[in-house]
Amino acid sequence: MAGSVMERCELLSKLSEEPHVLTRPYGSRAMGEANEAVARWMREAGMNVRQDAVGNLIGRYEGAGGGTFVLGSHLDTVRAAGKYDGVLGVLVAVACVQRLHVRGERLPFSVEVVGFADEEGLRFGTAFLGSSVYAGLFDGRLLDLEDGDGESLRDAVLNFGGDPEALARGAREASDFLGYCEVHIEQGPVLEDLGLQVGVVTSINGQSRVRAGFAGHAGHAGTVPMKMRKDALCAAAELVLEVEKAARSRPGAVGTVGEISAQPGAGNVIPGEAFVSLDLRHPEDEVRGRLRDHLEDQTRKIAAVRGCEPVWKAHQEIPAARMDPQLSGLLGRAVEEVVPAVHRLPSGAGHDAALMAARCPAALLFVRCERGISHHPAEAVAEEDVEVAIAVTARFLELLARDRA
Amino acid sequence: MAGSVMERCELLSKLSEEPHVLTRPYGSRAMGEANEAVARWMREAGMNVRQDAVGNLIGRYEGAGGGTFVLGSHLDTVRAAGKYDGVLGVLVAVACVQRLHVRGERLPFSVEVVGFADEEGLRFGTAFLGSSVYAGLFDGRLLDLEDGDGESLRDAVLNFGGDPEALARGAREASDFLGYCEVHIEQGPVLEDLGLQVGVVTSINGQSRVRAGFAGHAGHAGTVPMKMRKDALCAAAELVLEVEKAARSRPGAVGTVGEISAQPGAGNVIPGEAFVSLDLRHPEDEVRGRLRDHLEDQTRKIAAVRGCEPVWKAHQEIPAARMDPQLSGLLGRAVEEVVPAVHRLPSGAGHDAALMAARCPAALLFVRCERGISHHPAEAVAEEDVEVAIAVTARFLELLARDRA
Repeated sequence: MAGSVMERCELLSKLSEEPHVLTRPYGSRAMGEANEAVARWMREAGMNVRQDAVGNLIGRYEGAGGGTFVLGSHLDTVRAAGKYDGVLGVLVAVACVQRLHVRGERLPFSVEVVGFADEEGLRFGTAFLGSSVYAGLFDGRLLDLEDGDGESLRDAVLNFGGDPEALARGAREASDFLGYCEVHIEQGPVLEDLGLQVGVVTSINGQSRVRAGFAGHAGHAGTVPMKMRKDALCAAAELVLEVEKAARSRPGAVGTVGEISAQPGAGNVIPGEAFVSLDLRHPEDEVRGRLRDHLEDQTRKIAAVRGCEPVWKAHQEIPAARMDPQLSGLLGRAVEEVVPAVHRLPSGAGHDAALMAARCPAALLFVRCERGISHHPAEAVAEEDVEVAIAVTARFLELLARDRA
Repeated sequence: MAGSVMERCELLSKLSEEPHVLTRPYGSRAMGEANEAVARWMREAGMNVRQDAVGNLIGRYEGAGGGTFVLGSHLDTVRAAGKYDGVLGVLVAVACVQRLHVRGERLPFSVEVVGFADEEGLRFGTAFLGSSVYAGLFDGRLLDLEDGDGESLRDAVLNFGGDPEALARGAREASDFLGYCEVHIEQGPVLEDLGLQVGVVTSINGQSRVRAGFAGHAGHAGTVPMKMRKDALCAAAELVLEVEKAARSRPGAVGTVGEISAQPGAGNVIPGEAFVSLDLRHPEDEVRGRLRDHLEDQTRKIAAVRGCEPVWKAHQEIPAARMDPQLSGLLGRAVEEVVPAVHRLPSGAGHDAALMAARCPAALLFVRCERGISHHPAEAVAEEDVEVAIAVTARFLELLARDRA
């Protein structure tokens, strides 16, 4: 079945908003096409398919008894993405349900496979939109967020066939969640380094996302002497290097500026405004909080020295999420039955499992990826590792069914 | 007379291609209207008026003897421009000739007042179109340039009543130029800072424009440890600060990064590529060249330390244009007779005087502008400063006439 999953990853990688590279933001035409393709595969696997109020794609395989166990990951991507991030977990889950369907097996609980509509936050800068809606944790105030073209999230939801009012009311898809299990590529080099195909995640690092910047004074690049300038981009450049320095000096921390802009943005005009995105992560919430506060302080200091106005808007705080020990134990048992040894590790990346963990017991299986490369067209996984992931997930469902029988 | 010049600047500011803001590109309807208005004022000042092959507006006040001294500046504007950039110099020149006309005075040489049809290059992206034609330095290959709507410069010249074939032949308006003197707002804060109304320009800074950048390696913002990163934006941030530092440490130099971009440009992705624009200016070509070479060297060094690939593409080199010492000396004498002191300064911005300097002795008088703001609707000059500019120009013509008598 891994061959089919690999083929499907390949097919989905063609559904993009940009030529030659994979870019599939929330609510895009390409996202609609991906939902259609996955819906078809879900139906072939015996599932009833629907889209919820934000556009999450949900395939339901009815069980013999009550309660719903959720498998899934996300179908959106970053800009110029790889083929496996998110997509792999959805397709492994579909493959496992297909196996049940082919054998005519029903579990003592229903299984829902979810393709979350937004995990990366490419379009609106806020991650986990899809799983926050599915888990009933959506913050209605986010509906006023605007994308780069000034379209609100409210309108984007509407245009994607969703229902913003249902989101605003905090609509929850299901209330009988038994648990959640996600398969995802590691997006890091640890498993490869250890020569392991899969690993069980213990916890997901917390994350702070901030929009920071400076308002200085625009001016003619030729006529304003250096000492009279209030160059907002120079201030932003200092902050970029402060983020790097501060993260480097705190073991286990990572800090990234992935976006930068300077206004008005002409070669012969001194930037009057400059903005950057900050992404800060650490396994411990307290350490991450201190890192964030330090950088806010640095932003103020840089602004003061340069006579600029600081901008600091912390727009997302995601606490570290511990995976459920019992469910993870069961996942570990499944791993041990398929491969020689189980390795447990933290996740540096955020995952939908972090959101789901706030609603129900959650577990996360990492699949080795080549050289740890992710969020890049060179992202790669081996077919034999995908085979292991399918076998582990299938065995995990069997163990779960036995427990609940 | 300054009151009348201020009123005329106000009137011309209404002749725009866009509502509410002043945008007057080459060859536009608004430019035609501006030429008509200024032609009327030129005739009132006793001048014969014509348009040349590119649409420069030329008013000629015949002299008692041979040779032509040229006064002028440009009548086109940037997008959302101020009211004084260019226009002020033309109207001050018209006012000075009107003074002669009212008194019935003839100089020992003819005076031509030119309103150049294109200095900003808003429409075709190439500056100094008007003065290059008038000075006989036009490059015929430029006729194939296209504006944003795909209209060629050739057609634009034709539609503006000009003669593209005459341009292609390198037609020159006059061959008996005695010299050129331009009045222009400073577009910088230096005179205001010194409490001076006007200043004499020594030279127009040369300019290097470069696209520099780094190719590193994109990666997941959560999973790649700090020490394993090749973050292209961190490298670019170092370069931004190097540009500032290097320009600050060289008296008279300015260095600006006005544009920056990071790819792929998502908050949770380590930038794999980052690019910046560099704009470097200095009164001396050799100093500017060393500044440019130093920054190219720094770009290589930053890249080497970070394991990135450097990118360095110098795409424009404009040599400095020295104003004529003798003519500038005469202009300085005129200044000293009107205000207590003469201040000499380089021009950080390009001006038609740079082109004219290639054909004949040229001089440039700067007028103080409010807070150095330019290329912006808030651009402002004081009426009493305009009065000084008129008095200086009139006295300059008298001194010139005495010299040539």
